[in-house]
Amino acid sequence: MPSDPFTQNKTALLALGGHRVWSLMVTLFGDLAQEHGSTIDGPTLSAVMAEMDIRPEAVRVALHRLRNDGWISSEMCGRTGLHALTATGHHETTQASARIYASPAPPSESWRLALTQDAATSDDMIARGFLTLLPRIYLGDVSTRAPSDALILEGTPAPDWLRAEISPLMLDPEYAALLPILQKVEQTMQRGMLTPLQTAVLRCLLVHNWRRIVLRHPALPAALLPDDWSGHACHKLIDTLLARFPRPTLSVILPS
Amino acid sequence: MPSDPFTQNKTALLALGGHRVWSLMVTLFGDLAQEHGSTIDGPTLSAVMAEMDIRPEAVRVALHRLRNDGWISSEMCGRTGLHALTATGHHETTQASARIYASPAPPSESWRLALTQDAATSDDMIARGFLTLLPRIYLGDVSTRAPSDALILEGTPAPDWLRAEISPLMLDPEYAALLPILQKVEQTMQRGMLTPLQTAVLRCLLVHNWRRIVLRHPALPAALLPDDWSGHACHKLIDTLLARFPRPTLSVILPS
Repeated sequence: MPSDPFTQNKTALLALGGHRVWSLMVTLFGDLAQEHGSTIDGPTLSAVMAEMDIRPEAVRVALHRLRNDGWISSEMCGRTGLHALTATGHHETTQASARIYASPAPPSESWRLALTQDAATSDDMIARGFLTLLPRIYLGDVSTRAPSDALILEGTPAPDWLRAEISPLMLDPEYAALLPILQKVEQTMQRGMLTPLQTAVLRCLLVHNWRRIVLRHPALPAALLPDDWSGHACHKLIDTLLARFPRPTLSVILPS
Repeated sequence: MPSDPFTQNKTALLALGGHRVWSLMVTLFGDLAQEHGSTIDGPTLSAVMAEMDIRPEAVRVALHRLRNDGWISSEMCGRTGLHALTATGHHETTQASARIYASPAPPSESWRLALTQDAATSDDMIARGFLTLLPRIYLGDVSTRAPSDALILEGTPAPDWLRAEISPLMLDPEYAALLPILQKVEQTMQRGMLTPLQTAVLRCLLVHNWRRIVLRHPALPAALLPDDWSGHACHKLIDTLLARFPRPTLSVILPS
């Protein structure tokens, strides 16, 4: 029984794995309700999650967890729950959004190498936007702010073997798994063929699978990556698809 | 029974250890008979080696070894043996001399960092004049010729911790052991107080102890070393002392 393209693509995106319900919900709020004062009402939230094959009980557990963690606050308006990002949740979300929704055109081709005094500062360097190439050796773009005692050297054209070495550190296998699914979405889904609910679901699954990878590595200039790094193609497709399927207005996701 | 300053200094220089007879002889030929066509006759060689407390039998064994290794050739002139560097020995000696007799003033403060594709090229990089800082990470001055596939980054001001880390790799402890002996020589030995034979011996021991260290590490600019790196002070003293005690003319080392 062949299903429609939306269902096929939705199933493929869900099958990639790694979809905790609370995490999908964070993606959904980040994509649809990031503006200050924006809320998602209970019925809309339930409908979107149900369309992603998530049971109502799992939605309730995830909401409880996100409230406990200070990410989401809920209040009642009559008999309808209204859910919104807290100040903390909003802050974290906007920080991540800068990477998630970044244009695929890199701002600069310049890069730098940092040498630190010891390997124990690795976590700090990663938090500063560096990629760990070797113990004590880090690579970053020009926007990175290295600790004052690190040695910083400006990058020169990177040899092919270095780009090839960096590619898996920049999660090429993960992008390579996502890429054919994004290509299928791009080929089979046209503007105007989705309901607002389906659009919300498709965007949520696209952003979720993308952010699961992109937030786990720094932004490095193309000068440090092979031309065939799968992250490049994924980034362009994500950008194309999010533009093709703009955010639906929250109030029209559920037919009244 | 206190001995004279020359004997005291000679004993201290000999006591540093690592003085194979054949190696001392290579130093002697390099210092006194490096010019093409220059020879050291048997009696002069014997007298210099005897002044360094080396037995005649050990001199004969070392000469035999150096002839077998193609470093030294000997011919008879009447009843006197004349010993000289071979073409091979001359080539190796002049190459080493560029480092051994280099001026203490560094030609450049610039340096570079090289990243290689794998750690197996370490010997090659050392031969090219690089210091191994970390696996695959090398430091060199601007005269180094890196392999074409290495990534080369131009140096920037090096932090103190990096200079401190480099110091022992540049054999600071070995220089620190030599330094007080050179200082004692500088304080107690004045121009004109030595015979030509004593001058030949003192120069040979100074050059020998210096080259044992300096040829085991690359020439790095001062920008990569702590100001108190013992190699700096040793280099200045070696330069001062070799200028204070110029090479004696070979024909006057032995009183006729």
